[in-house]
Amino acid sequence: MTSAERSGFSRRGLLIGAAGAGGVAVGATASGLFNAVNADEPAPPPTDVVPFFGAQQAGVATPVQDRLVFASFDVVSDRREDLVAMLKEWTSAAAKLTAGDPVGEVAGHPMAPPEDTGEALGLPAANLTLTVGFGPSLFDQRFGLEAKKPAVLHEIPALPADELDLGRSHGDLCVQACADDAQVAFHAIRNLLRIGRGTVVMRWCQLGFGRSSTTTRSQSTPRNLMGFKDGTNNILSESPADMDAFVWVGDETDQQWMRGGTYVVSRRIRILVESWDRDRLEDQEAVIGRQKVGGGPLTGVRERDVVDLAAKNKQGELVVDTNAHIRLAAPASNDGQKILRRGFNFTDGMDPRTGQLDAGLFFICFQKDPAKQFVAIQRRLGATDLLNEYIKHVASAVFACPPGLREGQWWGQDLFS
Amino acid sequence: MTSAERSGFSRRGLLIGAAGAGGVAVGATASGLFNAVNADEPAPPPTDVVPFFGAQQAGVATPVQDRLVFASFDVVSDRREDLVAMLKEWTSAAAKLTAGDPVGEVAGHPMAPPEDTGEALGLPAANLTLTVGFGPSLFDQRFGLEAKKPAVLHEIPALPADELDLGRSHGDLCVQACADDAQVAFHAIRNLLRIGRGTVVMRWCQLGFGRSSTTTRSQSTPRNLMGFKDGTNNILSESPADMDAFVWVGDETDQQWMRGGTYVVSRRIRILVESWDRDRLEDQEAVIGRQKVGGGPLTGVRERDVVDLAAKNKQGELVVDTNAHIRLAAPASNDGQKILRRGFNFTDGMDPRTGQLDAGLFFICFQKDPAKQFVAIQRRLGATDLLNEYIKHVASAVFACPPGLREGQWWGQDLFS
Repeated sequence: MTSAERSGFSRRGLLIGAAGAGGVAVGATASGLFNAVNADEPAPPPTDVVPFFGAQQAGVATPVQDRLVFASFDVVSDRREDLVAMLKEWTSAAAKLTAGDPVGEVAGHPMAPPEDTGEALGLPAANLTLTVGFGPSLFDQRFGLEAKKPAVLHEIPALPADELDLGRSHGDLCVQACADDAQVAFHAIRNLLRIGRGTVVMRWCQLGFGRSSTTTRSQSTPRNLMGFKDGTNNILSESPADMDAFVWVGDETDQQWMRGGTYVVSRRIRILVESWDRDRLEDQEAVIGRQKVGGGPLTGVRERDVVDLAAKNKQGELVVDTNAHIRLAAPASNDGQKILRRGFNFTDGMDPRTGQLDAGLFFICFQKDPAKQFVAIQRRLGATDLLNEYIKHVASAVFACPPGLREGQWWGQDLFS
Repeated sequence: MTSAERSGFSRRGLLIGAAGAGGVAVGATASGLFNAVNADEPAPPPTDVVPFFGAQQAGVATPVQDRLVFASFDVVSDRREDLVAMLKEWTSAAAKLTAGDPVGEVAGHPMAPPEDTGEALGLPAANLTLTVGFGPSLFDQRFGLEAKKPAVLHEIPALPADELDLGRSHGDLCVQACADDAQVAFHAIRNLLRIGRGTVVMRWCQLGFGRSSTTTRSQSTPRNLMGFKDGTNNILSESPADMDAFVWVGDETDQQWMRGGTYVVSRRIRILVESWDRDRLEDQEAVIGRQKVGGGPLTGVRERDVVDLAAKNKQGELVVDTNAHIRLAAPASNDGQKILRRGFNFTDGMDPRTGQLDAGLFFICFQKDPAKQFVAIQRRLGATDLLNEYIKHVASAVFACPPGLREGQWWGQDLFS
């Protein structure tokens, strides 16, 4: 078999082959896919591809996928040309990866390293999205971007109760990879890292194993590692008014290259699960302000019942504690501000210093002004939230995510031009 | 809403509810599930439950699930009764968890901590298997088990090229949790840890994000993080002769409580992906002895073609290098010995000491005699395998996995009685 023959595979082709062999026979029959698995007929378009090109970057309003690999990079070259060349190559690779294709030939020339590392061959596109962001540190003197720095882009200031690990915080660039298959998300980040060798190094990387939020009404509300539904009152991408008011950067920006973009804040929030798991149900529900199983507010029954923050019990006490999490996080307590949450549950195994599970919530939120939105809300939460007994914010980062691309454009084109 | 009302949920009930709301409508229609989502009719039995009770433990011959959480525990109580009580409680919990049920009430008495941590409510059973094993250290003087130690159970000896981290190696007990949903697997281990508090502490824990092997012909061969198909010539559970000859402990054992059991060896194998990704295709294929894309041996075309280890090229050189991985690992090179591989790809993010990806293969294999099987094979591989330039064995463990249980029995009953 020649190299050319061997490289004539595509991830999708292999997948369809597997379906024909019976792997997903039920679904295939139901949707008519099965008959199409015939060499004479064209394969149907896959239904698990999120378009890469568009007015906004995918991975923000996109229905939250199941798995996350979030990577932060520092630029080690001081040549602007290197960074631009890498971003062009990353964009080309990202378009292929999100379509379910390898970034290049897995088996091309025998004397050259493969252009794609190969571990996603045969796997579906899995709704992969790749979302790029530029950190405040990228706008220092190295690349001549000082004048392009948005006025609202600053490192997140020290917040009450922060215990940050700088090695897991900040960064010049980020790529958020979300997919319904962890290996697909990992493969994407690994190949971007490979392409960027010599220009960037990875600063930190966080895997998330389960979505802990929802951004559309079509998805059920998932549970975080406290066992509570998380994201019931999140901004929904079906609410364009909310998305424009709180998420997508509009005319107010001082930087045209950010119009239609957004700012992402990530926080590694460790949950002290051993303490939480020993807390009694009544207290857990008081801390959150919601019922554990059903998810309704303590003043209601059903999950989406609107909380009555003024309600009192027979003893004249507030039903939702003054420092309950949902009270302090509510828009009513924050000058009406909201954020689009898109976090993931994580565990990195055991913390060898304590013997406890290193697990929690990798909190991700999108907004148009981090200081007015995330920082203001977290300043209140970090100070008095009852949850603080059971959580620790251990890492933090912020990045400017530019708007989406038309075909032929590349990540950062309007920033660097 | 009373606590009793709130606790009247089951994971399956919530799942069916979600299906009825449209979440899995296509699959549901095709299989007739949809009509069954009617309060008047009983819900159909779930199709993603692996039976917990049986002659052998599940999680060995079971078709490999997508995700892994492998946990090792050390016993901190010196009272045999504590250990027995915990194993009974673990067994009861494991039977519930693998059926897709919580281990107890998520919302029971308001003044008590929830009996289940709750984060898997609404998630499917996801083919969860929980497989228990007893490490060599459990058979010291603490629990009076010295006479019950199988003759073949010893810590894996130092092997060529080992660079072991003791903090991630060994342990008194292990539980392997495999499932098609990472949160389901995590939830299981977390609740066992919670139940075991005061009796055991977690020694180490490894997540795997993608299966890197197959144990049945019905599954396609997955790829490891080298981009190669892994497990093509694995023992298949459809071959009872191989399973009896190499995996399940038989009459030869000196310990009746292990008859029908097996021994698991785990090895955390770090892949130096940065070096590997720079290697040229021809060399990658020579190192493994197989074609990267198709997976066939260098002496064949198709994946399952039998390798011809004696074949030579026109220059009279062996086609499969003397030290190629498939030659050294082949039964023909190991007195006919085989092992059942059941490993998972992993990454734990970035290694802060080197800035490189901490990623690789969490190798798991099952066999009836670790010294004759894994140790003998790895001694050869560790010495001269061409792969050694690109991998490091950084952790190791071995555990005796007893046979399966009948309902009413508990993990370790025959060991402790």
